[in-house]
Amino acid sequence: MPKQTQVDADVVIVGAGLSGMIAARAVLAAGLTPVVLEADERVGGRILTEDVIPGLPVELGAQWIGDTHERMFLLAAELGVETYPQFEDGETSYDLVGSGVLRESEFHARFGDELAELERVLRRLDELASEVPVDAPWSAPQATEWDSITAGAWYDAQGLSPVARTLVEICTVGILAVPTAEVSFLHLLFTIQTCGVTSELFAESEGGAQTTRFVGGTAEIPRRLAALIADHIMLRVPVQLIEHSADSVSVHCRGGLVARGRRVIVAISPTLTGRIMYDPPLPGARDQLTQRLPNGSAMKAFFVYDEPFWRTDGFNGQLISDVGPARMSNDTCIPGDDHGVILMFLEGEQARTFGRLPEDERRAALTAELVRHYGGKAAHPEFYVDGEWSDRQWTRGCYNANHGPHVWTAYGSALSAPIGVIHWASTDTATYWSAYMEGAVDAGERAAREVVAALLG
Amino acid sequence: MPKQTQVDADVVIVGAGLSGMIAARAVLAAGLTPVVLEADERVGGRILTEDVIPGLPVELGAQWIGDTHERMFLLAAELGVETYPQFEDGETSYDLVGSGVLRESEFHARFGDELAELERVLRRLDELASEVPVDAPWSAPQATEWDSITAGAWYDAQGLSPVARTLVEICTVGILAVPTAEVSFLHLLFTIQTCGVTSELFAESEGGAQTTRFVGGTAEIPRRLAALIADHIMLRVPVQLIEHSADSVSVHCRGGLVARGRRVIVAISPTLTGRIMYDPPLPGARDQLTQRLPNGSAMKAFFVYDEPFWRTDGFNGQLISDVGPARMSNDTCIPGDDHGVILMFLEGEQARTFGRLPEDERRAALTAELVRHYGGKAAHPEFYVDGEWSDRQWTRGCYNANHGPHVWTAYGSALSAPIGVIHWASTDTATYWSAYMEGAVDAGERAAREVVAALLG
Repeated sequence: MPKQTQVDADVVIVGAGLSGMIAARAVLAAGLTPVVLEADERVGGRILTEDVIPGLPVELGAQWIGDTHERMFLLAAELGVETYPQFEDGETSYDLVGSGVLRESEFHARFGDELAELERVLRRLDELASEVPVDAPWSAPQATEWDSITAGAWYDAQGLSPVARTLVEICTVGILAVPTAEVSFLHLLFTIQTCGVTSELFAESEGGAQTTRFVGGTAEIPRRLAALIADHIMLRVPVQLIEHSADSVSVHCRGGLVARGRRVIVAISPTLTGRIMYDPPLPGARDQLTQRLPNGSAMKAFFVYDEPFWRTDGFNGQLISDVGPARMSNDTCIPGDDHGVILMFLEGEQARTFGRLPEDERRAALTAELVRHYGGKAAHPEFYVDGEWSDRQWTRGCYNANHGPHVWTAYGSALSAPIGVIHWASTDTATYWSAYMEGAVDAGERAAREVVAALLG
Repeated sequence: MPKQTQVDADVVIVGAGLSGMIAARAVLAAGLTPVVLEADERVGGRILTEDVIPGLPVELGAQWIGDTHERMFLLAAELGVETYPQFEDGETSYDLVGSGVLRESEFHARFGDELAELERVLRRLDELASEVPVDAPWSAPQATEWDSITAGAWYDAQGLSPVARTLVEICTVGILAVPTAEVSFLHLLFTIQTCGVTSELFAESEGGAQTTRFVGGTAEIPRRLAALIADHIMLRVPVQLIEHSADSVSVHCRGGLVARGRRVIVAISPTLTGRIMYDPPLPGARDQLTQRLPNGSAMKAFFVYDEPFWRTDGFNGQLISDVGPARMSNDTCIPGDDHGVILMFLEGEQARTFGRLPEDERRAALTAELVRHYGGKAAHPEFYVDGEWSDRQWTRGCYNANHGPHVWTAYGSALSAPIGVIHWASTDTATYWSAYMEGAVDAGERAAREVVAALLG
């Protein structure tokens, strides 16, 4: 059979991540024909589950949803993917600012004042974030001021104790995956506001962003979604060029495929949208925006043991530390499987530095940290795997696009505004839980609404 | 004749800016065959001279060289392009921090203390910059500290008076074309060190970066250089994909042309290098770097009058102001032509905001500012033209790549290090006068040396 060189559709969608596939499903539901062009050999984008041991899926990408992620709960239900709660029983282990390893109860007893400081800062962030319109952060009353400083500079100015300052840094980097010295304070407030309040964002329990997991692995969501629109997805077709006119698009892929349609939804991270050639070229303001939205750096490292021995010792598998390469960890055991699985997070500078060491050195440094917190049993995992996202050609970093100072106020209005027949999706453009799977669905649905309204009136 | 679909060379060069053409000339001189692939319909890159009135070239791009730009003086001599000194006679006009319009003599008399403050800051910058190795800024003794703060934060911490703080901001934005709140302090020091000392960089007289102009316009340099290597330059061939192996490259262009060679030199700004597809893909560290090196924003606006009336009034045509859309101006008359030409600079936030107003509004606001400084004769120019670089598809911003906090220390080593058979040029990778034409030559020559050494041993 000759290689397919042309495909026609109403709506061409670039990227078969969650956002692009949600958009495709919505377009199809409206009676229009989508075609999704995916550069990679798989769907799912920043969702990536790998069965490293048969029956033991590990989540190298997006993993959790939270209680207010309504779209994701609904989607999981529609797709028949069951959920289960994140394991939370037991104590977190701390080691901060030279405290040495302390159990949660000890840490709270010793650093009650510092935790109260942190709480005050989070309440203040909530107050300020409530003034940021999620669909136009640049129009917040103090947008200019907030966008001229970094989140780190704002934290520094709060007069926090070293423990509170370190804790708030770890919490923030855990969301943004870049140091707070690189992120606009306005962007931090925007992020908080798209998620509700800081307690939603920073906490893992009682309503946080990480309360719930998916049976079989998160990738069940994109896998089943793809199955519903399988006739409309093409893999291994990297988009190089989008020609566009007032009422049509021709999307050219490496290898020669041309997808023609009436509208295009580009459902990849903003920095990647900037790598496509557009003819006619996009306005300077859009182009300068995509030069200024780098993805963060995140690495997840999984240790698999024969059992979750930390539970027996009263630990929940979470650590918060400024000592080793990982600032945080999580118990990510699978219900019904006997293995103990601990996930270590390396984010921002940690991913950039330790993430580039040879694997044996990364593993040794992380193992040493686990041993310090959970004892000698941690020294001998059955299995180790890690994954860093900047090496992945079709993703190039996680968790999302980060806005440095002045980006929202100088260029933000170009983030999701359609340009002629070109529309933008991906969680980075969401106004509800931006950077999360929930945001991917939000943005995909919004882009589909724009396109359907334009084509069907 | 059928459309050419393949070209063979020893060295494929991407970009016919100054850096790429210098590299091509050096490769040719070494007995190897280059081919330069240029996306645009012209050579010159960030050098762009337009004859807006016959015989009156205006420089929408790079314009001056300075006394220590040895390579450029040599190149001009080789190419037979004559030079002339920048007009400097008379006084600068100031209006800063509510001072109202003041002639230079008045300004100096009133703000002697503030100018002394500025001088102390510049001397301190020189001292610190001298500790930055230009080929490895990340290895400076205090690199981590200097790269974790912005230049703006460092300035803010110097306890400067409003006038001195404003002056140092204007001087710095005049070089970097982004607000100091976006630039790493380490990057500012690197920039200073590649240029010698701050007096070289900030001053226009006695050894600064802007002492000398080219007869016929700066574009005479790339035009004559292109004529020397005309058989090796192809225009209108935007590069989309670079396939590379241990000893060969295939460079694929829009339209179907494939250029094959043994090495490739990518001589375009770092952000644009990130838009090419590479097979195999580049390492994550390189990719994350190019996500983090946005080009600045600069607009030059030219007012052409029947005569340089400001000279009669004792002015040199320079203004320094924080009032109107332009922070600085220059007398850019052409010797032997009677017209008076004033160039207004809009850089950083000024280019981003005023640069996007409709042309009549931009022109009116700039005219009003000229009238405030130079009187009613400024109200009626014969001709007005301006140019902003972010709209230009194959440049996308000026003057150069800007390193925010943590970029040099986390990713800097990937800036110019070859990756297999792929080498990097453009002034953004220079270690001498980076961001200037001199740096373009420096980087082009360095990349050519790498390639020649690899191929000829």
